[in-house]
Amino acid sequence: MPTMYSILAKKRAGLPLSGEEIGFFVAGVSDGTIPDYQTSALLMAICILGLSPEETTRLTLAMADSGERTDLSGIPGVKVDKHSTGGVGDKTTLITAPVVAACGVPVAKMSGRGLGFTGGTIDKLEAIPGLSTNLTLEGFKAQVQKIGLALAAQTGNLAPADKALYALRDLTATVDSIPLIASSVMSKKLAAGADKILLDVKVGAGAFMPTIEQAEELARCMVDIGRLAGRPVVALITDMEAPLGRAVGNSLEVEEAIDVLKGRGPADITELSLTLAAHMVAMATGDRPDHCRVRCEKALSDGSALIKLAEMVGAQGGDPRYITEDGYLAKAPIIRPFMATDSGYITRLDARLVGEASMLLGAGRTRKDQAIDPTAGLVLLNKPGDAVQAGQPVCLLHTSHNHNLSAALKVLSRAVSIGDTPPTPRPLIHTEISA
Amino acid sequence: MPTMYSILAKKRAGLPLSGEEIGFFVAGVSDGTIPDYQTSALLMAICILGLSPEETTRLTLAMADSGERTDLSGIPGVKVDKHSTGGVGDKTTLITAPVVAACGVPVAKMSGRGLGFTGGTIDKLEAIPGLSTNLTLEGFKAQVQKIGLALAAQTGNLAPADKALYALRDLTATVDSIPLIASSVMSKKLAAGADKILLDVKVGAGAFMPTIEQAEELARCMVDIGRLAGRPVVALITDMEAPLGRAVGNSLEVEEAIDVLKGRGPADITELSLTLAAHMVAMATGDRPDHCRVRCEKALSDGSALIKLAEMVGAQGGDPRYITEDGYLAKAPIIRPFMATDSGYITRLDARLVGEASMLLGAGRTRKDQAIDPTAGLVLLNKPGDAVQAGQPVCLLHTSHNHNLSAALKVLSRAVSIGDTPPTPRPLIHTEISA
Repeated sequence: MPTMYSILAKKRAGLPLSGEEIGFFVAGVSDGTIPDYQTSALLMAICILGLSPEETTRLTLAMADSGERTDLSGIPGVKVDKHSTGGVGDKTTLITAPVVAACGVPVAKMSGRGLGFTGGTIDKLEAIPGLSTNLTLEGFKAQVQKIGLALAAQTGNLAPADKALYALRDLTATVDSIPLIASSVMSKKLAAGADKILLDVKVGAGAFMPTIEQAEELARCMVDIGRLAGRPVVALITDMEAPLGRAVGNSLEVEEAIDVLKGRGPADITELSLTLAAHMVAMATGDRPDHCRVRCEKALSDGSALIKLAEMVGAQGGDPRYITEDGYLAKAPIIRPFMATDSGYITRLDARLVGEASMLLGAGRTRKDQAIDPTAGLVLLNKPGDAVQAGQPVCLLHTSHNHNLSAALKVLSRAVSIGDTPPTPRPLIHTEISA
Repeated sequence: MPTMYSILAKKRAGLPLSGEEIGFFVAGVSDGTIPDYQTSALLMAICILGLSPEETTRLTLAMADSGERTDLSGIPGVKVDKHSTGGVGDKTTLITAPVVAACGVPVAKMSGRGLGFTGGTIDKLEAIPGLSTNLTLEGFKAQVQKIGLALAAQTGNLAPADKALYALRDLTATVDSIPLIASSVMSKKLAAGADKILLDVKVGAGAFMPTIEQAEELARCMVDIGRLAGRPVVALITDMEAPLGRAVGNSLEVEEAIDVLKGRGPADITELSLTLAAHMVAMATGDRPDHCRVRCEKALSDGSALIKLAEMVGAQGGDPRYITEDGYLAKAPIIRPFMATDSGYITRLDARLVGEASMLLGAGRTRKDQAIDPTAGLVLLNKPGDAVQAGQPVCLLHTSHNHNLSAALKVLSRAVSIGDTPPTPRPLIHTEISA
C-alpha cells in the first residue's frame, strides 16, 4: 500500500509512479484524505519533472473514474466529441455540430461555460432567449436519437478529482504543465462517453500554448493518452494568434456562426469549421476524408446545417427564428469604434489582448458565479494584413456600460500593431497529429 | 510587492528569488498568512531545482530573524559555537566544551533535544540527577562569565519559521535538500548569537549525508552562508559510518565522555573531541592551530577539563561527584550480549542500524513528547577491524524492559558484518572546509 510520503519521495527522485500509486493519489484527492499541502507538492514535482505517457494515462483514467461516466452507448452509431483548448472568437462548435448532424452523424455534445476571456459554448447558446442547455441525461439522449443533435451543459459529477486538482493548480502556479493540461482535458473527455475525440489544439498569442512546438507536444500527449486508453484521438493544431472570424462575444458569435451556416461568414472560421466537421464525419463513418469534406460543404451550401441548428434550438426551448431569420438577437445599447492611430497594414491583432478587452466590456467572467452580458463584445472590422487609414475604425466595441470602455480601448491599443508592410500570413491549420 | 503565486511561478521557471521575495515568503510562513499548500509547493520546487548561495543566505537570514536572537555580546571574548549534523554515539560536546573552557575560552552553548536514534546533548546531560538545563538567559550568561562554561537548552522563540518549514518538509518528502538543511541549521546558529561557528558535518551510514561529495556540498553551502552573512564558519567533515566511541545511549555516553576527560576513553572520540576543541580555541583566539591543540591536550591530561565539567554540573544543580568519581551514574537493570555468529573480522558496523537498535532499547524518541530512558543503550565491545570469535559477545544491550530486546537484536544482526579480511580503515576526519 503506497503512502503519499512515499509517492512524493519517488516522484521527487524522478522515478515513475505505478498505477497503484496514481490511483491512491487520485482517490485521496477525491475523498479529501490527502491534505492539500501534499497534493500541491506533488503537482509542483510533476510540473518540473514531467510525467511519462504511461503515468499521464494512468492519471487521466483515474481522474475520469473519480466521478460519473456518461453512458452514450444507447445512441446508435459512433459518437465523436470535439474539444478546443480554447481561444478568442472560437464559435466552431456552433457551426461544426449542426454540419456534422446534417451529414447524418449523431452529435451528442456536452460543453462547459467559459472562465476568462469569453464565454464557452453554453454561454454563447444562452444568448438565445428561452433556450435551455440544462437537459437531463435521458432528455439529452432522446433528443440526439430524434433529431441527431444536442448541445447541453455538462451534467453530473464529471471527473471531480480534476476539479479539485485544478483549483489547487490555479493557486500554486502549476497550471501550465503539458501532462497536467492533457490529463485534465482527456479525463473529462473520457468520462463524457464519446467513442472518438477530435481535438482542436490552439497555438499562438491567444492560446494556452504560444509556440507550435508546445502545441504539438500537448497534442501528442493527448493523442498518446487516447491510444493507451483505447479511445481514438485526432488532433489539429490551429492558429490562435489573432481571433477567429470577426466577432468576439456571446451574442455576436452566435450571429457570426449563423452567418457561416448561411454561407456568408468570414473565410477563416468557415474553413476551420468545415475542416473540423469533415474530420468528425470521417472519424465516425470511416469514409474518405475528401468525400466527407464534400458532404460537409453540401450541408452548408444547401442550408441543411442551418435547419439542423434551428431544429435543435426549437427542441431545447428556443425560438428557431433566431437562427433562420436575421435581427432577432439582442444588440448592446452602446457601440463605440476603436480608431487606427496610423495608416498602414495591420501587422498584429493579439488574440489574448482582444479577449481581455472583450472581458472588460462584459463578455467574460473572472469568477464562476459571475453573470455574462450576452450582447457585450467586439466586432473586428479589419484583420491582420488589412490596410487601414489613420482615424478609421478598426473594430467596434459593444457593451451595456460606459465604465470599462476606456480601459478596453487602452487594452486594444496594445493589441493592434500597424506597420508599413503586410505581415506574413500564418496558416489557419498547422498540422494534424494522430496515433 | 511580490505574491506567493508570482514567487512560485518564478522559482518553478528556475529564476532566482530576490531578498524581498524570500522575506515575503518567510514572513508569511511565520505569521501563517501563506497557506501550507503554497509553502509545500515552493519547498518541492527548491528541492528539485536548488537555491543559489545568495538565495540560501537570504532564506537563512530571514528565518534567523523570524524569532528572537540571543544576544551574547555581554560576555567578553569571541564566542565560538559548535554544531554537529548528528550521529550515533556523538558525545563530543560533553568533552569539547569543558576542554575549550579549561583553555580559558568562554563556551556559551545552547543545545537541543534529540529526535530519532539517540538523545541530544540536553538529553545526555539530564542523565545526571538534579542537573538543570533550563537556565534563564541572564543566568546562562552569568554562569559563563563566572566559570566560563554553560550548556543549556535553547530558550525563547528561536527561528520559528524554520520550525514551521521543517514540520511541513517532514510530511512532504522535502527534508533531504542541501540548501534547506543548510539554511535550517544556520538560521538557528545565527539566531543563537555566537560570533563564529564550527560545524561537524557527519558523513556515512549514520549521517544525513551518505557520501563525501554530499557532505562536502552541505559543508560548503553552510560555509558560504556564514561568509555572506558575515559570520565566520569552519566545517570539518567527519566519519559516521560506524558509531563514535563505544557507548551509545545517554547515561552511557556521559560515562564515556567522563572517561575521555579522565584520559582513558576510546581513541576515536578522544581524537575528534580534541580536534574540534583545538579548532574552537583557534577560531576564538586567532592562535596557531598546533599551539591550540597542545593547550587542549594539556587541559585533558592535567584534569582541568574534567574539573571544569564538574564545576558546570555543580553550577547547574547536579552533584559534581557524578563527574569526578566513578560509579555514580545509574545502570540499566537488564544487560544482554549480542553474539558474533561467525569468526573473522568486523567489516561493517552500521551506525544507522546501531542507532535504531538503541532507540528500540529506549535511548531515543520518535515523538517530541516521548520520555527517554537515560540508562538504555549499547556498549560496543568491538569496532570495525576487530577480530571476533563466533559465540563471543560483540556488544552489550542495556535496557529497562524486555519487550523490545529481540527486535533490537534483530536490527543489530543487520548492523554487524563479519568477514575474512579486515576492512580498509576509514579516516576519522575527512576534510576541512572554510571560506
